[in-house]
Amino acid sequence: MEGTAKTTQALVSEYNRSSVLEYLYHNGVCSRAQLADALSLTPAALTKISARLLDTGIIEETGGIVGRKNRRSIGLRFASERLHVIGVKFARSLVQIGVFDLKGTPLSVTDLPDVTDETIPDAVRGVHETVGILLAQDPNVIAIGMAVPGPYLRTVGRTALVSSMQGWRRVNFLREFGGAFRVPVFVEQDARAGVLAQSLFSESADASNLAYYLLGEGVGLGVIDHGELINGAQGAATEIGHVSIDVNGRPCDCGNVGCLERYCSAVAIHHDLVEDGTIVPGAASMSHRKACMELFKASDEGDEAAQSMVESIGRFVGFGCVTIINAYNPDVIVLGDIVSHGGDRLLAAARRVVDERVLPELNDSTDIHLSDLPEDATILGAAAVAIDRFLDHPSDFLALGA
Amino acid sequence: MEGTAKTTQALVSEYNRSSVLEYLYHNGVCSRAQLADALSLTPAALTKISARLLDTGIIEETGGIVGRKNRRSIGLRFASERLHVIGVKFARSLVQIGVFDLKGTPLSVTDLPDVTDETIPDAVRGVHETVGILLAQDPNVIAIGMAVPGPYLRTVGRTALVSSMQGWRRVNFLREFGGAFRVPVFVEQDARAGVLAQSLFSESADASNLAYYLLGEGVGLGVIDHGELINGAQGAATEIGHVSIDVNGRPCDCGNVGCLERYCSAVAIHHDLVEDGTIVPGAASMSHRKACMELFKASDEGDEAAQSMVESIGRFVGFGCVTIINAYNPDVIVLGDIVSHGGDRLLAAARRVVDERVLPELNDSTDIHLSDLPEDATILGAAAVAIDRFLDHPSDFLALGA
Repeated sequence: MEGTAKTTQALVSEYNRSSVLEYLYHNGVCSRAQLADALSLTPAALTKISARLLDTGIIEETGGIVGRKNRRSIGLRFASERLHVIGVKFARSLVQIGVFDLKGTPLSVTDLPDVTDETIPDAVRGVHETVGILLAQDPNVIAIGMAVPGPYLRTVGRTALVSSMQGWRRVNFLREFGGAFRVPVFVEQDARAGVLAQSLFSESADASNLAYYLLGEGVGLGVIDHGELINGAQGAATEIGHVSIDVNGRPCDCGNVGCLERYCSAVAIHHDLVEDGTIVPGAASMSHRKACMELFKASDEGDEAAQSMVESIGRFVGFGCVTIINAYNPDVIVLGDIVSHGGDRLLAAARRVVDERVLPELNDSTDIHLSDLPEDATILGAAAVAIDRFLDHPSDFLALGA
Repeated sequence: MEGTAKTTQALVSEYNRSSVLEYLYHNGVCSRAQLADALSLTPAALTKISARLLDTGIIEETGGIVGRKNRRSIGLRFASERLHVIGVKFARSLVQIGVFDLKGTPLSVTDLPDVTDETIPDAVRGVHETVGILLAQDPNVIAIGMAVPGPYLRTVGRTALVSSMQGWRRVNFLREFGGAFRVPVFVEQDARAGVLAQSLFSESADASNLAYYLLGEGVGLGVIDHGELINGAQGAATEIGHVSIDVNGRPCDCGNVGCLERYCSAVAIHHDLVEDGTIVPGAASMSHRKACMELFKASDEGDEAAQSMVESIGRFVGFGCVTIINAYNPDVIVLGDIVSHGGDRLLAAARRVVDERVLPELNDSTDIHLSDLPEDATILGAAAVAIDRFLDHPSDFLALGA
């Protein structure tokens, strides 16, 4: 039975190390005294924890800083540049692979050739090859994060549906990649990965109730509620793209009717642009992303038909915000991915719907804004999946002893 | 700094006591060795914890039981009858007050006179008086739980909206009752209270991803995700009644359009029955509950128009289930309160919608059933709010020392 007592002790140690790392990660250089205060640890415990972490190189001492009572003391910092992760973003037609440091700074990003339903096996092979090369080149990579379109059945390892590209359903990501490399692989649904990226890398990081509203080829959502991801039994919760906004509306591949995704995803917008034929001439031969970006460009340049369409899309985005507020009551909703490039006009239209349709007390306390992360937020999300895991379980990645 | 180390130790002790109590609560009589095994505690730690708990009387020793290796050992049991809680259910027009033991066994239930918008101050006074009398009569009451209609702003202490009875918005439950009695008061939104009742008292208790779908005068939802309530920033998450199923549908008092509550709450059904005029004659002069129960009775007795209306209500209930599955991915959805008395016909209609509209992988793993708790599930929920708090923080209620 001594063994189980040690196990409990090990869990407490790991929790404390994780707390120290996360605090330094989010707060920059701190003295040991500041850390001990902030985390309610004794100075002796903090000294022990920091010694172990210093040994691994993941934190390091800086010159003297001004600490409590204006006394100078040694600072500790998180050496985020010392270790790297690989992020792999699987979208319907796009696979991107990047290497990042632990602060999400991109060191390299590679786009694989555009994927169609027929070339999915090639894309899977491409991921094996490219990741293999990157791992061989960079000994500092400690983990791989993957972001895949939802609904993703985490316990099974594959997506339950990828609207308009069913071929991805045949790929079991856990079986395909789980044990394929010298470092561990963690897979998450893309919007859930996106909210981890927001919480790690963005200014919104201090919101403990945060929603990331992914408006890409699909529409997805990741929600952090009181610091924890909302998961659901199979990791398939928060599938806002398949929540109906009209039970008599447009049918969806998932079986439901009136799914939000059928109105304001890049795929739906592209479809509407092709049908329209005039706002974006030649839309039929463009990628989903390209067609949307052309629409937004026309709108920004003053084309009234384009502006009216962006506002109509913004209303549908707003209907989604209303549902998100009533369903999850977050502090912050961050709009990201392709459709968020509709910018202020789209955001204003969404906000008007929220102003009309949400209870004032809830509306007043919910901030809605566009993502302030760079373009490749979902591939950053893939990296975030790995980094989040590292910060939660440092002993799985560092030689920290018991 | 020694103080903070002790604080951490106190938290660990409290966690371990809470674990022991919860295990005995859910698993009946156990030996110390079984408990130590199940909770990964050393025998020494378990002996210390159980001694403290035995001193308070909340657990007690039973005669010898057959334990490990068929040796007889002393059993421990949770003495749920030793302590009591008061539960207060506030519905739109009904206030019920009950005394329960810690297993939710009702010792007494009192209905206050029917409430209208004008008589809310009387109802509030009635709660003060009745609870005061019950507390004076029963020294074993340790806490009061209250269940109020949602959306309830937990941090503020009042409901943001009670459709069709706005007067309740003026009552600040925390200010009104928070410090009014000799025992602490805990307030929760009614459906959230309902899911706590399901997890404490029902056969569904072992589902760690559980949704309670309250179909009463309003429509509400409480969700436990991996053992924790989904709360939202202000405690106003999971407001399924105000999630729109048709953005061009029926307007709702909350400002939204097409709210689920406008189609399958007892209030909406009552409205439809009055408009119909033939299925339940005299519906206009009945309470919401009475009108619904007459409809279900007519349906059970073979009235075809009533059956068709029950099926139509069931379809709307089903649209809600589809949203719940896509939004929260629970293992189990429990239908409760007034409208669940529509019974198997209503449930079958809801399930048909789910079969049509939910991805097979998610549908197969989601069990939908009617509540197996007695009629007064929400007042049980009010009691559950207090009992849940007791099990989580036993030291707040028992003299357990440091």
